[in-house]
Amino acid sequence: MNMRDVILKKKAGEALTREEIRAFARGAADGSVPDYQLAALLMAICWRGMNAEETAALTMEMMHTGGVVDLSEVGGVCVDKHSTGGVGDTTTLVLVPLAAACGAEGAKLSGRGLGHTGGTLDKLESIPGCTVDMSRADFIRQVQRIGCAVIGQTHDLCPADKALYALRDVTGTVDSVPLIASSIVSKKLASGAGAIVLDVKTGSGALMQTLEDAIALAQAMVEIGVQAGKPIYALVTGMDQPLGTHVGNALEVKEAIDILSGRAGGDLLEVSLALGSRMLVAAGVAADAAQGRARMTQALRSGAGLEKLREMIAAQGGDARVCDDVTRLPQAAHVIPVTAQADGYVSRMDTAKIGYCAQALGAGRQKKADVIDPAVGLVMDVRLGDYVRAGERIATLHVNRPELAQNAAGQLREAIALSPQRPELPPLIHAAVSHAGVRRYTKGEESL
Amino acid sequence: MNMRDVILKKKAGEALTREEIRAFARGAADGSVPDYQLAALLMAICWRGMNAEETAALTMEMMHTGGVVDLSEVGGVCVDKHSTGGVGDTTTLVLVPLAAACGAEGAKLSGRGLGHTGGTLDKLESIPGCTVDMSRADFIRQVQRIGCAVIGQTHDLCPADKALYALRDVTGTVDSVPLIASSIVSKKLASGAGAIVLDVKTGSGALMQTLEDAIALAQAMVEIGVQAGKPIYALVTGMDQPLGTHVGNALEVKEAIDILSGRAGGDLLEVSLALGSRMLVAAGVAADAAQGRARMTQALRSGAGLEKLREMIAAQGGDARVCDDVTRLPQAAHVIPVTAQADGYVSRMDTAKIGYCAQALGAGRQKKADVIDPAVGLVMDVRLGDYVRAGERIATLHVNRPELAQNAAGQLREAIALSPQRPELPPLIHAAVSHAGVRRYTKGEESL
Repeated sequence: MNMRDVILKKKAGEALTREEIRAFARGAADGSVPDYQLAALLMAICWRGMNAEETAALTMEMMHTGGVVDLSEVGGVCVDKHSTGGVGDTTTLVLVPLAAACGAEGAKLSGRGLGHTGGTLDKLESIPGCTVDMSRADFIRQVQRIGCAVIGQTHDLCPADKALYALRDVTGTVDSVPLIASSIVSKKLASGAGAIVLDVKTGSGALMQTLEDAIALAQAMVEIGVQAGKPIYALVTGMDQPLGTHVGNALEVKEAIDILSGRAGGDLLEVSLALGSRMLVAAGVAADAAQGRARMTQALRSGAGLEKLREMIAAQGGDARVCDDVTRLPQAAHVIPVTAQADGYVSRMDTAKIGYCAQALGAGRQKKADVIDPAVGLVMDVRLGDYVRAGERIATLHVNRPELAQNAAGQLREAIALSPQRPELPPLIHAAVSHAGVRRYTKGEESL
Repeated sequence: MNMRDVILKKKAGEALTREEIRAFARGAADGSVPDYQLAALLMAICWRGMNAEETAALTMEMMHTGGVVDLSEVGGVCVDKHSTGGVGDTTTLVLVPLAAACGAEGAKLSGRGLGHTGGTLDKLESIPGCTVDMSRADFIRQVQRIGCAVIGQTHDLCPADKALYALRDVTGTVDSVPLIASSIVSKKLASGAGAIVLDVKTGSGALMQTLEDAIALAQAMVEIGVQAGKPIYALVTGMDQPLGTHVGNALEVKEAIDILSGRAGGDLLEVSLALGSRMLVAAGVAADAAQGRARMTQALRSGAGLEKLREMIAAQGGDARVCDDVTRLPQAAHVIPVTAQADGYVSRMDTAKIGYCAQALGAGRQKKADVIDPAVGLVMDVRLGDYVRAGERIATLHVNRPELAQNAAGQLREAIALSPQRPELPPLIHAAVSHAGVRRYTKGEESL
């Protein structure tokens, strides 16, 4: 296989064969294709795209460059949930315990935060003692015993994706629907998922800023499922503001506990229920999404979800008492209010900027090697559409290095636009995408 | 300068600044930008193109990554001629002596053959004793003394172009007008050219197969001249069949000598006169192209051109007696006719295939390290529009390894299409491109 010919073919807008895609994926994994040819092909794919067959082929070929986790011992269909990344978005810590409490096993391999978005592993590690490193056998045993586990991805999964992702980052070739779709789904399938529920974010804090791009990505991933014979279901949800009110690692664990305790709710709970209800359907423990939602709500009210989180934290070596006393979570030394400088409706938020603000306080990494401060972050005191007066609190910073606060407060104020008119609010759930097609929702209609 | 941001900017279709282009060219020359980022940017340039300012900036920045030859000691305007590469195209060996005989100095740095096209250096080296390696001082002395010299490019010119060209070859990013134009012109300007006459080929043996692509390339190069303040003039000429009748190194030297001796003529002479007349104008020794052509024709008839070639060969250490006795050139051991297998008009030639046929006989290199056989090649006995009968000779192979002849004969027959209808013949000179615009010629109108 001459890789230059493959590049020329894609550059001319033609579809690649399975064999050509295999040579590309294997070449990325084993280094037999030089980086400069991979980079040229990645840019040609950004230019010309890939059709559904090519995207599915790339997914499967990337998956097969490494190990594939066998979750058959767990029994039943292991449903995985994946989010394209958001701010204040800790749905995993809400819905995995709830779904497990309803009988849907959650054996989840998660990632770390990078850029302005958080990562579930970093959040779990903010719980004193909690580990996300576990042998595969221990992982499966934990799922069998308590119904859920969330650990880090093992290193041998999808080496092709690892190599291509690193290259895409430095060659400006991240934002291609087939490349994003195949990257996500290859890792999920390699992790042993029998079915996948996807949360594709859209808005100012999302990879896909426009709704149409987000729907296109959701469709591409659902279509890979069709081609690969795995049920994949996607919701397109809003990231026009942080999903929960808390942004930061321990702060987001606290919010998940608050929700599972019935003390909090809002958009984070809504999206968790919407995704969780589809997970129950995919796992075969609910007949339809409405029934799934009813069961999730019941598990929330009964406290079964919180109990499941307690079990999971304990099983992973963590201090489960945080579930009953959130002050056992790491606390920042300084809590500093940020106030509005004018009157107005909160009309727009630059959600990525809010994420970067938390990152700058130490909640996230600027480089992979950076060490996270689990305690720091911020709490949003307003949501889109709220009316605030000058001097009223719009957010609260949780900091350990007070010298960072002034800059962070300025950034936050810049990220929150106030206007005299009451804004039109976007729906929380924009669309549901399945093999049957795209169903779009308008505001108010989406909560199923 | 973050090269990823530069890539993203070009990928979005925006124009790059001079500083961004400088970082790209320098990074290619000194290795400070990794190959994978160069490759991604090259593909993005293939996708989005470059405007006239960007193309000129890339040309100048590539030129300044290495040494620039100073030909001011030669005196007068040194006019360089460059062809985008053809088959049976030895215009340099015809027009450089003719122009020098007319008083236009020719200080030319030439290249070697690669792929299906020949190179002037290889042709000169087929003359017994003739060298193309010379110090810069000797080179300038020779031009001062006899008015012309053709030697190899020195190694320190345009290192950015060298690096990018090698990368383009393996990443499928050769065919981009701004990349081709800047590559050609940067080398010519670095070679010390005060003005440039370009021969942009179009047709079945050319890099630019369509006329519109060839005109676009010519315009891009002329526009670089406008931006750089150097007169650049281009003719777009046909490469729908080998330009001369001889294809191969010593064979093409023989044809040049035959033309300068008045024994041969045809398209090779026509194109040489058309290009040479513009060189005389650019050098300031003719008032217009018509006067230039008259002077070139006079130098041909008087034998002054042949005498100049004799001087140049002798000055470069070669056996100048070849000019009076072409049998002193290397001769192939076997001369094998190729005959037509049917009656018909020669309606189309696959000129690249004819070039590859000569290459396979040993006249060209498949890899850079291959050694050329100076004696071998082929002579075309028909031209487009000729009527041939089955059994009549269409070409003659000159071979040293007779076992290659049968395959070559088959290839040649495949490359020459015969049809019952007399074909429409394309013009030899399709267009002239200058800063004043594009002038297109129709058949018969082009010979100025």
